[in-house]
Amino acid sequence: MSLLYHLPFSANCRLVRIALAENKVSFRLVVEAIWERRDSFLALNPEGQVPVFINEQNLKICGASVIIEWLDENMDNSLIGSEIDIRCESRRIMNWFLNKFSNEIDNTIVYEKIMKGFIGKGNPDANILRVGRKNLKIHMEYINWLSKNRDWLAGNEFTIADISAAANISIIDYLGEINWKEYSSAKDWYARIKSRPSFRKILEDKIPGLLPPKYYNDLDF
Amino acid sequence: MSLLYHLPFSANCRLVRIALAENKVSFRLVVEAIWERRDSFLALNPEGQVPVFINEQNLKICGASVIIEWLDENMDNSLIGSEIDIRCESRRIMNWFLNKFSNEIDNTIVYEKIMKGFIGKGNPDANILRVGRKNLKIHMEYINWLSKNRDWLAGNEFTIADISAAANISIIDYLGEINWKEYSSAKDWYARIKSRPSFRKILEDKIPGLLPPKYYNDLDF
Repeated sequence: MSLLYHLPFSANCRLVRIALAENKVSFRLVVEAIWERRDSFLALNPEGQVPVFINEQNLKICGASVIIEWLDENMDNSLIGSEIDIRCESRRIMNWFLNKFSNEIDNTIVYEKIMKGFIGKGNPDANILRVGRKNLKIHMEYINWLSKNRDWLAGNEFTIADISAAANISIIDYLGEINWKEYSSAKDWYARIKSRPSFRKILEDKIPGLLPPKYYNDLDF
Repeated sequence: MSLLYHLPFSANCRLVRIALAENKVSFRLVVEAIWERRDSFLALNPEGQVPVFINEQNLKICGASVIIEWLDENMDNSLIGSEIDIRCESRRIMNWFLNKFSNEIDNTIVYEKIMKGFIGKGNPDANILRVGRKNLKIHMEYINWLSKNRDWLAGNEFTIADISAAANISIIDYLGEINWKEYSSAKDWYARIKSRPSFRKILEDKIPGLLPPKYYNDLDF
């Protein structure tokens, strides 16, 4: 059976889990504590990052966007989109989340509130949280604008743009950081994503001692 | 005619220029001072980053990897590779340069030695340069190892892995930061890239007041 090396609260890993589930690929999850820098894991991926996917033919595929492109080329259900223009737009938005959102939110709010505790580096820094929340507002407004003006984030098809955004949002929402009342179009869009079978498993992950808000895995929130 | 919004010393832009030239796509270069955050450029790419490519049908394509995937799907000359495994490996290495190299080298050495001057933020910080140089050694050793063990960086085909690496190396080499004597396999590999017609134009770009080492655009260095 295929394997996915992952971390439950890595947005890039959630993105891949959803995309694999949308393609009905069955796989086993292996949690990889990347900060331990195990030699055998570094031999799989010299960058030392998750996700890494090993398929049934033992092909190793490192990194979220590489796994997505591989799925697109080898599975029936294209998540990148059916036409040239939506393929450019869904990839642009995926990269927005892989790079910009990751730099501005994962490295601030998620690092301070989740990772710091995991690796024993103390309490969240209030100044960094403040910067992260300011950034988050801009991202949420952008998602809200896209959801208001389009059926799905990249256009009229459900694509990897939606999956990337939702994977990231799910982690921030676990931390109770989103005031959904301010973003009604984004809220409707996220409710549609939450109702997909591919997404249900993601919402079951919990951090011991740090529970999500009550509405976290409700479809109606 | 197609347009490429770029900056001459952005590695991601160089990567795209080489890939377009390898595919014999003709295009006009437009320098975009991204730090000015022009409204009409932000309307093209809300992320405010280069490269942005506008093709003859007026399709806008934002970001290096999105342009590369578009080229792969719409041009004859695949630079991602012909088989599943090399396609995974060339994309992995491209992402290594787009993300890891960019974080560790562009944000240290290139920012301190080039960008700071451009945007009037003073002289390079010696401590940051020291960190950047330490990182660069690891990247050069990795490129050297790959070049020693494979025909091209991702395997037996010239791919986007080579283009990504060379685009980044060309900027660091302009700054005289590479001691080629220590990396003989990487040096042979880079000489082969330098001799490609697609690469010659890149080496003609100059920064006023900051000239490259004499060997910079020699094929024999």
